[in-house]
Amino acid sequence: MKSKVIKLAGLPVGIPQAANFTMVVEVLPTIQNGQLLLKTLYFSVDPYLRAKMSGGHQPPLYAGDIMYSRGIAEVMESKHPGFNPGDKVISFFEWREHLVHNGEGISILDNKGFQLSNYLGVLGTTGLSAYFALADIGKPKAGETMVVSGAAGAVGSIAGQIGKLMGCRVIGIAGSNDKVEWMRSVLGFDGGINYKNTPSIADEVARFCPNGVDIYFDNVGGVISDSVISRMNNYGRVVVCGSIADYNDTDVNFGPRLLPLVVYKKLLIQGFLIADYRDRFAEGIVQLQQWITAGKLQFAETIIDGFDHLPEAFIGLFNGRNEGKMIVRV
Amino acid sequence: MKSKVIKLAGLPVGIPQAANFTMVVEVLPTIQNGQLLLKTLYFSVDPYLRAKMSGGHQPPLYAGDIMYSRGIAEVMESKHPGFNPGDKVISFFEWREHLVHNGEGISILDNKGFQLSNYLGVLGTTGLSAYFALADIGKPKAGETMVVSGAAGAVGSIAGQIGKLMGCRVIGIAGSNDKVEWMRSVLGFDGGINYKNTPSIADEVARFCPNGVDIYFDNVGGVISDSVISRMNNYGRVVVCGSIADYNDTDVNFGPRLLPLVVYKKLLIQGFLIADYRDRFAEGIVQLQQWITAGKLQFAETIIDGFDHLPEAFIGLFNGRNEGKMIVRV
Repeated sequence: MKSKVIKLAGLPVGIPQAANFTMVVEVLPTIQNGQLLLKTLYFSVDPYLRAKMSGGHQPPLYAGDIMYSRGIAEVMESKHPGFNPGDKVISFFEWREHLVHNGEGISILDNKGFQLSNYLGVLGTTGLSAYFALADIGKPKAGETMVVSGAAGAVGSIAGQIGKLMGCRVIGIAGSNDKVEWMRSVLGFDGGINYKNTPSIADEVARFCPNGVDIYFDNVGGVISDSVISRMNNYGRVVVCGSIADYNDTDVNFGPRLLPLVVYKKLLIQGFLIADYRDRFAEGIVQLQQWITAGKLQFAETIIDGFDHLPEAFIGLFNGRNEGKMIVRV
Repeated sequence: MKSKVIKLAGLPVGIPQAANFTMVVEVLPTIQNGQLLLKTLYFSVDPYLRAKMSGGHQPPLYAGDIMYSRGIAEVMESKHPGFNPGDKVISFFEWREHLVHNGEGISILDNKGFQLSNYLGVLGTTGLSAYFALADIGKPKAGETMVVSGAAGAVGSIAGQIGKLMGCRVIGIAGSNDKVEWMRSVLGFDGGINYKNTPSIADEVARFCPNGVDIYFDNVGGVISDSVISRMNNYGRVVVCGSIADYNDTDVNFGPRLLPLVVYKKLLIQGFLIADYRDRFAEGIVQLQQWITAGKLQFAETIIDGFDHLPEAFIGLFNGRNEGKMIVRV
């Protein structure tokens, strides 16, 4: 049996390009005792993969490596006592159409009536990131003002809604008028800023947040974050969940120094890694499912069809192609 | 009765100058019932006063304001039931040789055999800042590596020693070879870096901290902090206690962006204000006194004599004139 495989042909300089990826066809071995044959169904593509290509996110990806990301697969054949044909499984998978696996680190997915793809988005590490990062670092209190960057993205769109559920006034920042309109009308945010359409993001933040910013849920970094952080209140919390504006930098990027503001305003700035919350995933998924079932949490998925389009979907993250979670259906 | 008074003549631009201050002589009123006549004995001068002059530290100081800082005074006359002549009292005091006071917000100081001036330094808000900021934000664990900036200063010299008492390997950064020698031989630090004498602070930090930096206790900000933060380990904590390198800035100062590092390394960066710990001062002072009595905590005071020299002592903070706490004896 043959399977397409996507490798990182070379490390990108700046924004990733199609030429940074290469597809090869490999012949799969027959499965042995203790092994499974999997057919991948969905892959998640995420900004942190870019950070792996520059060594910022550990472990790094090197030129020649097979790409991998979180995905969902179906068991086609099993010589492993823990799995049966037809089982849906979730884990990190190499970018292959089919793969032979020893079952280590993969779990059977009981989707409980939700779409399978949801478990790569709102019910996966992106939704869980929004939930745990906001609750544990942001510590929202009713009546506080929260700003979310990358607010139409996978994590930001969920984080903003959870902020609303926790009683905050929520302002989102995104890169198009359509996204701003979606945040307001569908997600229920109190306001939205199109950063591409604004002479001064800081002035817009001030206009939308007359009482200052208590929580900044940051997915992007860069000048957007400079602007929001300049409007933080005393004892404000900056939840640093991602920094997509910086992942493509080819050199150290300079911005206004933060430490004077940190001391003047007693700010807390903290980075977040979802893997640290592995023991609490089940609790988080139950909470997110309840909110969805109760109609309190909306989500979007941008689904790109075709295994061959994995690189293109990934590259699309850096030009705002996705509303909500970007997913590739194999 | 007459008393000299020091006012802020005008807001400094950059490093404060003598011309930013002015001294006038005022005639004191006779004290009324409920009032005290105080003679000031010691004043603390601190970097945060500069931050008040640019509005960073609240409440700000404006041109024409009488200067004030933490001080110790003696009760000369009392028509207040709570105070007797000879009592030593501690509070924030205006920069006056003598003053009439209604007793509000001042406490009688029981110095328990320690020098009065110690209560403006190691047993005052500077020692307490070192203790609470390190314990509560730095959360040191035995075996971790801690770097202190402004390490020969009032807060830094105490923070580094408390780091040692808590089992950390401690490296200090200061601005002269004498200070480095003092940190190593008297304070017991594991190493010291003279930042004025080093082509690359980051390289020196790497050399002294082969296992990376777990805690950075920052009093200075600026390029020193850029260098140390670039060497932080995953889950490192940056205790932002001061930012003296930035207080004199006349414009927004740029440096390498921190947020990518924050997310890659899951850093925590948090600002500290000692006033938030007022309820725990008594507990902290007892701990600091015990360490001093047991010979486990060394401290230095740079005492400048003469009320008239208050501005000069304050300005001296910005060119490294002090070893340990800078205090003016009236």
